[in-house]
Amino acid sequence: MGNGILIILSGPSGSGKDTVLNKLVENRDDIKISVSMTTREKRQGEIDGFHYYFVDREYFKRKISEDKVLEFAEYAGNFYGTPKAPVDEMLADGKAVILKIEVQGAEKIRKLYPNVISIFLMPPSMRTLEERLRGRNSEDEETLNHRLVIAREEMRRASEYDYMVVNDTVENAVAGIEMIINAERLKTLRNKKLLSEVINNV
Amino acid sequence: MGNGILIILSGPSGSGKDTVLNKLVENRDDIKISVSMTTREKRQGEIDGFHYYFVDREYFKRKISEDKVLEFAEYAGNFYGTPKAPVDEMLADGKAVILKIEVQGAEKIRKLYPNVISIFLMPPSMRTLEERLRGRNSEDEETLNHRLVIAREEMRRASEYDYMVVNDTVENAVAGIEMIINAERLKTLRNKKLLSEVINNV
Repeated sequence: MGNGILIILSGPSGSGKDTVLNKLVENRDDIKISVSMTTREKRQGEIDGFHYYFVDREYFKRKISEDKVLEFAEYAGNFYGTPKAPVDEMLADGKAVILKIEVQGAEKIRKLYPNVISIFLMPPSMRTLEERLRGRNSEDEETLNHRLVIAREEMRRASEYDYMVVNDTVENAVAGIEMIINAERLKTLRNKKLLSEVINNV
Repeated sequence: MGNGILIILSGPSGSGKDTVLNKLVENRDDIKISVSMTTREKRQGEIDGFHYYFVDREYFKRKISEDKVLEFAEYAGNFYGTPKAPVDEMLADGKAVILKIEVQGAEKIRKLYPNVISIFLMPPSMRTLEERLRGRNSEDEETLNHRLVIAREEMRRASEYDYMVVNDTVENAVAGIEMIINAERLKTLRNKKLLSEVINNV
């Protein structure tokens, strides 16, 4: 893993993952967000390599069979996954690399990278979550209620995560994630080389 | 443990533990340093309950037999130890409580408090450590060399600690410890109550 830190970020729909992550990386060159790969059609305004790597099904399946996808899932007939190579490159370069993934994907990553740390982004309350989802104004009542049920289920699994950050304001959530990354950089297991240098050198 | 956080801080003689700790608690009412108990004579300028709790041998031994001492050791015919009650009270009050103890004492605390976190304060180099010890000007060459040998041995055990903070400047070391405490407060295992409140309340 080089001196990099691999970080899983999960949170229910409406918890504000994208807003928080975009703000987080604005001023920190040492923190990178992993870009997912997908087989779905590129939408207007989306940039290949920024929002997603857009690939076809054949390519995606080959990458899976070559073990070059860290975790993947199928939604509505499309594949979504995390390509391994860019993550490993950024880790070797000493970056803190954030994977924005679902609770299920998180389990798989933990097995592959035992030193991964995981953060669950929590809404301050179910009421706030509902308001945020309602604010999107794009869903009927049934879909919204379904999302809230799923959100509650996901939040029940938050205790499987190392850290939880409450997204009451974007600033607080960003500060929380920054503190976690800064502290993790001080973990002894990530500083074995420095340790032996201090002991053995003059 | 209430919502408090128990923290072990170790580091070789000359690593600057006292200077860093005194600066750390200056502006943080949520961080407390545990006061040790000792049977040695009070020196001029020392305040009972601040520098140490000064007690007699009989009292110290009774506290040990009553299991009211977290860890203790004997140096030069005097007992030094950590009384349990004040630590537990501060933890119940939600404080981050720092125990400044030796590597040996740290092992014992880890068994009693599995959620304890441990920080090793490192000098930036052996050369700096030597200069700091020499600057004290109070020791002959033999004593100083002996201290350096012991320091190196202690530093070899730094990898048993969760975090290591390099004391290159007092400000950096204080900032490092503050970041660790701030991040530890976001650990899911310390926020189970908050988690269930968000999920179950409105």
